[in-house]
Amino acid sequence: MSLDQQRDNASAAQQERESGLVDRVVASFDSTPDPRLKELMQALTRHLHAFLREVRLTEQEWQAAIAFLTAVGHITDDRRQEFILLSDVLGASMQTVTINNTAYANATEATVFGPFFVENSPEVELGGDIAAGASGQPCWVEGTITDTHGNPVPHALVEIWEADEDGRYDVQYDDDRVAARGHLHTDAEGRYRFWAITPTPYPIPHDGPVGRLLGSVARSPMRASHLHFLVQASGLRTLVTHIFVRGDEHLDRDSVFGVRDSLVMDFEPQPAGTPTPDGRDLEEQGWSRVRFDIVLAPADAPEPAHRAEDPDGKGE
Amino acid sequence: MSLDQQRDNASAAQQERESGLVDRVVASFDSTPDPRLKELMQALTRHLHAFLREVRLTEQEWQAAIAFLTAVGHITDDRRQEFILLSDVLGASMQTVTINNTAYANATEATVFGPFFVENSPEVELGGDIAAGASGQPCWVEGTITDTHGNPVPHALVEIWEADEDGRYDVQYDDDRVAARGHLHTDAEGRYRFWAITPTPYPIPHDGPVGRLLGSVARSPMRASHLHFLVQASGLRTLVTHIFVRGDEHLDRDSVFGVRDSLVMDFEPQPAGTPTPDGRDLEEQGWSRVRFDIVLAPADAPEPAHRAEDPDGKGE
Repeated sequence: MSLDQQRDNASAAQQERESGLVDRVVASFDSTPDPRLKELMQALTRHLHAFLREVRLTEQEWQAAIAFLTAVGHITDDRRQEFILLSDVLGASMQTVTINNTAYANATEATVFGPFFVENSPEVELGGDIAAGASGQPCWVEGTITDTHGNPVPHALVEIWEADEDGRYDVQYDDDRVAARGHLHTDAEGRYRFWAITPTPYPIPHDGPVGRLLGSVARSPMRASHLHFLVQASGLRTLVTHIFVRGDEHLDRDSVFGVRDSLVMDFEPQPAGTPTPDGRDLEEQGWSRVRFDIVLAPADAPEPAHRAEDPDGKGE
Repeated sequence: MSLDQQRDNASAAQQERESGLVDRVVASFDSTPDPRLKELMQALTRHLHAFLREVRLTEQEWQAAIAFLTAVGHITDDRRQEFILLSDVLGASMQTVTINNTAYANATEATVFGPFFVENSPEVELGGDIAAGASGQPCWVEGTITDTHGNPVPHALVEIWEADEDGRYDVQYDDDRVAARGHLHTDAEGRYRFWAITPTPYPIPHDGPVGRLLGSVARSPMRASHLHFLVQASGLRTLVTHIFVRGDEHLDRDSVFGVRDSLVMDFEPQPAGTPTPDGRDLEEQGWSRVRFDIVLAPADAPEPAHRAEDPDGKGE
């Protein structure tokens, strides 16, 4: 047997060892009572082993991965969730949102929920101010909510929340302030309007292992400026989204991949002294205004099923 | 536009959203200074997103995954490494071992290292007893160490360690006992021999999140009975392996996938009164004996490179 033949034989044996191991791990989940859990664990096994085999992970790299996950686990507590941050910076959170909020006709796109939503926000009147003292430039936000046929959606619930101009949400302060968040309902014609503050960019928490990872790969921790929306109406699909500020320098490198082109809006700057839509007196302060018309998919919008193993490509 | 056409368009848009997101996340690592880290992060991204898209992960399942990883992180401390346990039960540890100890000619196969090796084990004479009081049936272990051409390897270092018949390693007891571990060197003809105890099965720690996962998928936490070996000799590839007991009921469902057919050995039962190889008097006790001839690959054994993207299939 030549040296080349020996080498080929060894490689065939090696291939067989690796793929045989994948088969054994997949088969170990065969008796899982819950069929969905079985599907998840078997697919996880296949993709995890495909990754290890493709990159030829070294034992030192495996140890580094264990140490990294251990550090992520140890910094995580009731107030800080580093695993969510890790999912965010790998785009896994945004991919999950994308999968579960399928494209439907002209419906407004969804984006990540983020960790800063709080239940029981203050109710504001139509045209009221959610800022409640949060620092920042006043911003007039208005729009309509319709279904995909253009019918207005009256009395829809609209929740809004955002960071102040120092890049912090109210819950990130040590006091019990409630600011830059609130909810309201559309009027009989599906219209809404309120005062908020012009969104500004801020970094995700980056003093932990995920921040160090971003440093190692030369990525910025900054999120593009945004204003969060959650919209609920009976018979329609709940929408969790943001609007982004056109011209923001972080739009093309948002650290959590939340930006969609269709969600980038013109926040029009209004020089000090420009009359406000509702006659509010802002004295010598400049302000901005933005229009965001929201289209909600039906609650039973079909989900295109295009799994990799879909044999006949149906639903593609 | 017909309803079918509308649906097809929506699905095409959905596909584009999902694959476009993968492309953006991959591109976010383009500026990574270390080329290997860049390769790892980009491959991880592709495989992670392929998993999410294939299973159509729901937002509830994503939350359950975050909660599971959080629990794994919180039970992990200096004495317990639940992330390694997770890697073990998914076969990722064994796959990493397999990738880094490539099949080579007739060299003995490697398997997982496990968490119970301890530096500075006691030295025993050839023919000595490593049990040092550990409970269990005496077992005579002997063999030779050769290279792949059949040349004996004199003065090779052989480390051995195992659990007692209660399924615990010495380091799992609260006292400072050192038992059922030791090291010796082969003689001038590459031979070794020692007394140990007949291996018995035991469960991996299963009172944490990984144990609960095994319960949910109806898998046993048991490891097939085994005796650990670590063999080092100059100019030869270091071997970390176990030998397993033929007939053990857990061989085909070892919880960490460590079993290789070539590592399953005949531990021959010897009735009480059977003369021992070295004249040791075991009184009325039965014992067992096993032969394990070890073949070491050269230290510079070629690694077959068969990456998925290997364009011309070289090294396959």
